[in-house]
Amino acid sequence: MKNLSDYSRVVRFGETDAGGVVYFTELLRFCHEAYEEELAAAGVDVKAFFSRDGVSTEKDCAVAVPIVHTQADFYRPMFCGDRITISLTSKLLTPDSFEITYKVFESSESANGRKVAKALTRHVAIQTASRHRCPLPGYLTDWIAAQSEPSELI
Amino acid sequence: MKNLSDYSRVVRFGETDAGGVVYFTELLRFCHEAYEEELAAAGVDVKAFFSRDGVSTEKDCAVAVPIVHTQADFYRPMFCGDRITISLTSKLLTPDSFEITYKVFESSESANGRKVAKALTRHVAIQTASRHRCPLPGYLTDWIAAQSEPSELI
Amino acid sequence: MKNLSDYSRVVRFGETDAGGVVYFTELLRFCHEAYEEELAAAGVDVKAFFSRDGVSTEKDCAVAVPIVHTQADFYRPMFCGDRITISLTSKLLTPDSFEITYKVFESSESANGRKVAKALTRHVAIQTASRHRCPLPGYLTDWIAAQSEPSELI
Amino acid sequence: MKNLSDYSRVVRFGETDAGGVVYFTELLRFCHEAYEEELAAAGVDVKAFFSRDGVSTEKDCAVAVPIVHTQADFYRPMFCGDRITISLTSKLLTPDSFEITYKVFESSESANGRKVAKALTRHVAIQTASRHRCPLPGYLTDWIAAQSEPSELI
Repeated sequence: MKNLSDYSRVVRFGETDAGGVVYFTELLRFCHEAYEEELAAAGVDVKAFFSRDGVSTEKDCAVAVPIVHTQADFYRPMFCGDRITISLTSKLLTPDSFEITYKVFESSESANGRKVAKALTRHVAIQTASRHRCPLPGYLTDWIAAQSEPSELI
Repeated sequence: MKNLSDYSRVVRFGETDAGGVVYFTELLRFCHEAYEEELAAAGVDVKAFFSRDGVSTEKDCAVAVPIVHTQADFYRPMFCGDRITISLTSKLLTPDSFEITYKVFESSESANGRKVAKALTRHVAIQTASRHRCPLPGYLTDWIAAQSEPSELI
Repeated sequence: MKNLSDYSRVVRFGETDAGGVVYFTELLRFCHEAYEEELAAAGVDVKAFFSRDGVSTEKDCAVAVPIVHTQADFYRPMFCGDRITISLTSKLLTPDSFEITYKVFESSESANGRKVAKALTRHVAIQTASRHRCPLPGYLTDWIAAQSEPSELI
Repeated sequence: MKNLSDYSRVVRFGETDAGGVVYFTELLRFCHEAYEEELAAAGVDVKAFFSRDGVSTEKDCAVAVPIVHTQADFYRPMFCGDRITISLTSKLLTPDSFEITYKVFESSESANGRKVAKALTRHVAIQTASRHRCPLPGYLTDWIAAQSEPSELI
């Protein structure tokens, strides 16, 4: 899988808890940031995409893709000031759903890229008006196809 | 000022930081919860009120009341598991703005009601379509009037 | 399973996102609150338990029980002002690990207790000094045993 | 004042609320990130600095500098995907306290650097053991002096 667009950021104080490390749900928030960054890099208008109305497709039908499942595994604690890198790959599941897999690494020099966590989100396309399932819009299936390309072909 | 409807809640782990105490911005979030609780108790539909469209008034004009200023003073640290009580009073500033003052106390038995913080939020009514200032809707001026009543009259 | 101590709370504005509903990671935060509430009700000192040092056991060895895995399924959106109820059950996995299952229901009158989500957290006991695995402290295995009791026996 | 080290970041979905814009307390969190970034750039070990023990000074006395006051003014809404830039300046108030002023601008091309908010945090140095006030450690007074330098001298 390609890693052209890994997302990197620093862990902040407000994301830690009294245990001295990152609060567990923040890891999933970091992963969602990586997803937003990738979509924006692919030209998606994230302000509209992540709004109540979603983005209208060719057929003039507003579509949103809420998360219906998520999971995460935690291998090592993350601390305030740590730089992490998130590598994501996406996969089409059905014409109206896809999932994203996230691998989270420490990226400070001393950490040697140790894996600190992995996570997954599963998304389903719905019409915002009816909340019924509908096919994923073309710009998302294109993005998923691009995400899934083996790196050697790039 | 009346304290009939003080808001009480327990500090949670996810609200603390690596310093071992509540992260500073969470105090303002707690205060906003008290505001939401008061509005709901006064019969305001908070789901509609705190939405992109705001609540429509008699004159069929959707109004929102975003926060334009906030401040907080911190007197004592709050820890995971602490029960706190927030007492709020509101005051009309102009026909299109008001402010809420929050006093935050420890309410566990051993704490003897020590004051831990105070805070303030200032709100301005705007038409959601134009984002221009407009008069506060009647249900808000009523709520502010009720909040400001001296307790001896109740 | 018993439901004596279901945890109930109202969804707050700060927990929603621009999609108009609860941001997905907040669901897991709600579940963790239920866990904290249950531990406190069982007499655990949550301030010490959820600190960098953890709680010292009989053998004078500080133990923490970080989350090593979590997952969640989302069935229905949650809105600002919604009252939800979380029912949890815990299960011992090994002498040094356990998992908690959370069922999340709408508990407003009109909602008829519809299920909105389910979630899971898996916890492993470690010595805080060495971060090596160690047996769960007795007060946790007691709590897990109590949580797992069939309701008909109570 | 110098602006050598302005902090820039993108607003994320999880920081918005059902009103469609950034939840008000998140602005203060963004400002704290800028503070962390500046300290790290000045060589401060932020993991230790933002921990329960604080950082030990020359005199072997652990010092923390909790926030005792904060305030913010909001001029324009911020949306998911917006890039903002935060410019901060710090000022010594007394030998044991200082304040930081934050100016927040839109930094996307179309926004022309419009000011969206300003904020302030006031910090007091305390000994972590006694929680009594104490002089600011030298690395902080140095940082404050550097922050306060007029830009023309650089």
